[in-house]
Amino acid sequence: MVAAIVLNAAAIVLATVKSLSASYGGLFTAIGDTALVLFALDYAARIWAAPEDKATVARGPWSARLAYLLSPLGIIDLAALLPLCLEFFVRADSDWFRVLRLIAVLKITRHAPALQIFVAVIRSESRVLLSALLAMTVNWVLVSAIIFALEHKAQPDVFSSMPQAMWWAIVTMATVGYGDIVPVSAAGRVFGGIVMVLGIASVAVPAGILATGFSAELKKRRSMISWRLVAKLPLFAHLEAPRIAAIARLLKLDIVPPRYTIVLRGEPGDAMFFIVSGEVEVQIQPRPLRLGPGQYFGEIALLREVPRTATIVSVTECELLVLSAADFRQLLQEYPALKESIREVAERRVGQERPTSPAD
Amino acid sequence: MVAAIVLNAAAIVLATVKSLSASYGGLFTAIGDTALVLFALDYAARIWAAPEDKATVARGPWSARLAYLLSPLGIIDLAALLPLCLEFFVRADSDWFRVLRLIAVLKITRHAPALQIFVAVIRSESRVLLSALLAMTVNWVLVSAIIFALEHKAQPDVFSSMPQAMWWAIVTMATVGYGDIVPVSAAGRVFGGIVMVLGIASVAVPAGILATGFSAELKKRRSMISWRLVAKLPLFAHLEAPRIAAIARLLKLDIVPPRYTIVLRGEPGDAMFFIVSGEVEVQIQPRPLRLGPGQYFGEIALLREVPRTATIVSVTECELLVLSAADFRQLLQEYPALKESIREVAERRVGQERPTSPAD
Amino acid sequence: MVAAIVLNAAAIVLATVKSLSASYGGLFTAIGDTALVLFALDYAARIWAAPEDKATVARGPWSARLAYLLSPLGIIDLAALLPLCLEFFVRADSDWFRVLRLIAVLKITRHAPALQIFVAVIRSESRVLLSALLAMTVNWVLVSAIIFALEHKAQPDVFSSMPQAMWWAIVTMATVGYGDIVPVSAAGRVFGGIVMVLGIASVAVPAGILATGFSAELKKRRSMISWRLVAKLPLFAHLEAPRIAAIARLLKLDIVPPRYTIVLRGEPGDAMFFIVSGEVEVQIQPRPLRLGPGQYFGEIALLREVPRTATIVSVTECELLVLSAADFRQLLQEYPALKESIREVAERRVGQERPTSPAD
Amino acid sequence: MVAAIVLNAAAIVLATVKSLSASYGGLFTAIGDTALVLFALDYAARIWAAPEDKATVARGPWSARLAYLLSPLGIIDLAALLPLCLEFFVRADSDWFRVLRLIAVLKITRHAPALQIFVAVIRSESRVLLSALLAMTVNWVLVSAIIFALEHKAQPDVFSSMPQAMWWAIVTMATVGYGDIVPVSAAGRVFGGIVMVLGIASVAVPAGILATGFSAELKKRRSMISWRLVAKLPLFAHLEAPRIAAIARLLKLDIVPPRYTIVLRGEPGDAMFFIVSGEVEVQIQPRPLRLGPGQYFGEIALLREVPRTATIVSVTECELLVLSAADFRQLLQEYPALKESIREVAERRVGQERPTSPAD
Repeated sequence: MVAAIVLNAAAIVLATVKSLSASYGGLFTAIGDTALVLFALDYAARIWAAPEDKATVARGPWSARLAYLLSPLGIIDLAALLPLCLEFFVRADSDWFRVLRLIAVLKITRHAPALQIFVAVIRSESRVLLSALLAMTVNWVLVSAIIFALEHKAQPDVFSSMPQAMWWAIVTMATVGYGDIVPVSAAGRVFGGIVMVLGIASVAVPAGILATGFSAELKKRRSMISWRLVAKLPLFAHLEAPRIAAIARLLKLDIVPPRYTIVLRGEPGDAMFFIVSGEVEVQIQPRPLRLGPGQYFGEIALLREVPRTATIVSVTECELLVLSAADFRQLLQEYPALKESIREVAERRVGQERPTSPAD
Repeated sequence: MVAAIVLNAAAIVLATVKSLSASYGGLFTAIGDTALVLFALDYAARIWAAPEDKATVARGPWSARLAYLLSPLGIIDLAALLPLCLEFFVRADSDWFRVLRLIAVLKITRHAPALQIFVAVIRSESRVLLSALLAMTVNWVLVSAIIFALEHKAQPDVFSSMPQAMWWAIVTMATVGYGDIVPVSAAGRVFGGIVMVLGIASVAVPAGILATGFSAELKKRRSMISWRLVAKLPLFAHLEAPRIAAIARLLKLDIVPPRYTIVLRGEPGDAMFFIVSGEVEVQIQPRPLRLGPGQYFGEIALLREVPRTATIVSVTECELLVLSAADFRQLLQEYPALKESIREVAERRVGQERPTSPAD
Repeated sequence: MVAAIVLNAAAIVLATVKSLSASYGGLFTAIGDTALVLFALDYAARIWAAPEDKATVARGPWSARLAYLLSPLGIIDLAALLPLCLEFFVRADSDWFRVLRLIAVLKITRHAPALQIFVAVIRSESRVLLSALLAMTVNWVLVSAIIFALEHKAQPDVFSSMPQAMWWAIVTMATVGYGDIVPVSAAGRVFGGIVMVLGIASVAVPAGILATGFSAELKKRRSMISWRLVAKLPLFAHLEAPRIAAIARLLKLDIVPPRYTIVLRGEPGDAMFFIVSGEVEVQIQPRPLRLGPGQYFGEIALLREVPRTATIVSVTECELLVLSAADFRQLLQEYPALKESIREVAERRVGQERPTSPAD
Repeated sequence: MVAAIVLNAAAIVLATVKSLSASYGGLFTAIGDTALVLFALDYAARIWAAPEDKATVARGPWSARLAYLLSPLGIIDLAALLPLCLEFFVRADSDWFRVLRLIAVLKITRHAPALQIFVAVIRSESRVLLSALLAMTVNWVLVSAIIFALEHKAQPDVFSSMPQAMWWAIVTMATVGYGDIVPVSAAGRVFGGIVMVLGIASVAVPAGILATGFSAELKKRRSMISWRLVAKLPLFAHLEAPRIAAIARLLKLDIVPPRYTIVLRGEPGDAMFFIVSGEVEVQIQPRPLRLGPGQYFGEIALLREVPRTATIVSVTECELLVLSAADFRQLLQEYPALKESIREVAERRVGQERPTSPAD
């Protein structure tokens, strides 16, 4: 699908170059038509498959299909098909028809999940960003009026009307600076210099807002992740949200360098560890075991109150969430209901004689 | 009013285009005059209504009116009326008169409350921003002198005087780059390259300052919001500022994903919750109840020490402030005066048999 | 002095404009000469007065003078005098002589103390910034070689040598874009587009580094300020640094909105307050007393264990450092030596019957 | 080596300038050839010396050599030699051969260790940055199609094909703005203005992402540094990672101004100090002792429970990690194994009568 989207766009773009269009026109049309057919099949398949999506299955097959049709991605998928219908009514090589056919490139956003972070940041900072845009617009109108008053006499042909002055103002404030319209009078240039400093601000202000937004969003996502990490552990599953949050708060983040001995065989155990990032190696016989993000280790020593049963060494730099033995025991006392299930899990694990166990 | 401001600005701008001015000149004048009359009426109404504004009512009607007249928005409203008075003295289509008439666009800032955040950031960072501006100015003067020394010989017509060199320097340092004046000698270009890197710094430095400022301002506002949230709750109203702050500090922020069971009917209650953002659904009969930002739930179980009376599920991602049962009880012991009022509220709520209650 | 510096710079700049130079040449020379004499007097006065500076007095008058001579500001002050000496050797209106005379504008940095923050940020991030500069330089050389290979054939006159290609590359990477050299071949433009995205990165990377640097520097300065605030209080003066830091850590920052009742007459007191920013009004007879940043209030109720003796209301939004009664008492028990001096201060203050007292 | 790399690059660049090439062609060729030989020797030496590198010695000499050959720096070193081999097959002054010879400038990255921070930031934010790039690309294609539709009629020669429109779009969105292609129609300019605001966003978004990334990376590195500082102390060496992390967490960061008395001779000691940055002076006879980053002081008073034996004053602004006496004693009780080794160290130090001792 990604290939179809990219090839379709390339064909549409290259078809506008006369020399290429003459030689390969047929190929371009073929690619465009094939892509349209593929998009149509894809759209039909997605409508058909919508009820199989886990998140929407509870709502029944038709409401799930409707949900897809009305979702932003569903609307984009439909828009990508519009040229197919319109081809019978308008001339296929008109400029605006081409824009319509290129809307298909929006389909590619489906394959970039990190775009959600932008959407979240822009939504959460939308009020401030819109205010910045409004302030810029108000400045823009006043700046244009002033430069028009200053330069109209000196260059009656270039600064012939306010819209011309507004074109200069936006080109300058965005720091683009084509140079097609430039003030020449002394007063116009002094004012132009002030506008350029304003232009720097109009880049710096959204940069500042977005930096703050990304910082807040990522912090939120990370606290969410540690919350989810704890919520996923069999030990703590089925707890109420605030209890999970309380446990997540007991965990402390440690960063250890590569090749560091985190746990030493024979030492008394005083904490258990959840891996957030990086990899550790459990040095057991016959061959060492590697554990990665989401997995945990060191809990056997706490549950059985025995010395560490294996040495564990970091392979890469690791971020570890550490639960101290004291916190672990207090946790059991606070939630007596938890105690029983933990004992059960402990019994089972000790039976397996595994020093570590995957979280999932 | 917003429509009047926008139409007025559009009419003034388009009236400078000769072709449009010839055909629609009358219409543009009519719009401008109507807008001026509207602004005059608006101004009179605001003066009249000033004493009805809650914040200023205590000061008596005339001091309230004076406060409005001298406020920034009051001065802008007056400035927007100036053309009405000046029309009799100067030619209405002169360039500067147009600037005066466009001042009315500043009135639109009344409708963008988030602009306050900029004002706060710029005020709190003003010393650093002014220093950045000063440093840029000092650099600018020295850079201009050096490029003038380097290029004056090579291009005596283009770099004819220091002001010309200063125009080049500001256009380059602001990364606008019109291209109307460009160094051509080898030494001039080497130095020009260094100036461009300085130019990048002159964008990056204010961006960095503003990012820090926005981050600090938003943090301040958020702590203010949690403070105000607590101050608004009937339970904690009429407390001294530091007590409210102490309670605000006891609250811990949790983020739960959508469709998460926050409270389970029949479970023992160990915390109460205040909603900061998002929505939860209380699953009671006959139809579920939705609670939004500013409302709270889960307090009945703490007050009566009974199991949860209803299951509560998050509808969207929710930010919750959680007050643990232990903190809640300690709070009552610390402030005995609080205890009585809480008992009263508890009695009343239990009588109503409502598991949750709006905060306001 | 600031006026002399600015007038001197203006005279030098305007003297390069032929039309102005013809009419006002004498005036410009007079201003320049007067400024030079003033700078010389200023320099002599500063050398003379150096030993009166408190920070350096301990080192004896001559070492204090030497310290000034070798300080960055001392060197700038000397450099501003160089033209006076050189006038006898070189032609006074040569281009480089003008640069020398404009060095005097650097003297103005003495009057902008916030510039220290930049210096601190740039010094603390210098390793990362230099690495960014190095990476940019390496990119720049390779980019220039590639665009030269791509465009040399198409435009042998414009891209005539590597230095020309390097000029294009720096103009593009700094997003200045004069337009004097522009790629025209298809391959050149594709590569040019990639270079522009690199150019965005070369603006965004230093912006990111500086944002982080400012954030860290300001946090450091704020913790320093709260430390200094505590160190300045007579109550805690003469303590060891870590004790002051420990007390600074006990203080919690509260933000209260304007017109908020912080302390209510007759209520039991449970905290004392240090004002960081904003103003409060102590409502005592016959006329209310205003307290500003650095001052404190609410300590009498803690020392005498009596109810609040006056109502205190915030005038503006206030940032307050709050010391709880419990922390205050624990402090006294921990440091018995403190106890006696506090009792004394208490006795004296109660005798004065002042509910509040300035910190300094 | 750095000189060889820089001279080699300069020779290659200047050899493309016809006037210089005619006069100094032989010199440039000589420099280039010498540099190539030096690079070859350097490469051989590095292969030979690889097994002497501590980090790789455990793996045996040949696997260490292979590790170097396959490392990024090894590949760059090899690439810098390619011209030596190719010289026999292609014409030495061809444009692409020159690019190949300039690859040697990448060798200089070996000498900039702070580049690792970029690599770390870009890797950790790669998903978000790639999404930003994808969003920019999608916008770019649609923007080009729309501007082509708007301007094709007005300027059939300039906006002759979609690729031309795409060139305009990237030049504008990157805020470069050469001015070689500029919209002239009213609709084209209105849309151009919108694209410029998009362009500002395309600078601000990566700036925001990178600011967040640098902030997170530096925080991580700093926590790593305090961890390593503690891990390096003889007192705490040989502890498990989480114990070291626990100790690191007990330490509190204090910042003291220059010339501040941190410890006063004769006072009871209540904390020990580890220097993170800055310098302190121990005022002992006959001449004061200076301590710098990584060293510690004030532990004798804690170990022997005697008053401070020397006054210690900060020379510069210092960042100190403070371990309170209470935490220190609790540490000893928690880890009985530690107790013995501490007593031993204490005995030895008291015997030496040194008030402070370097950490390493």
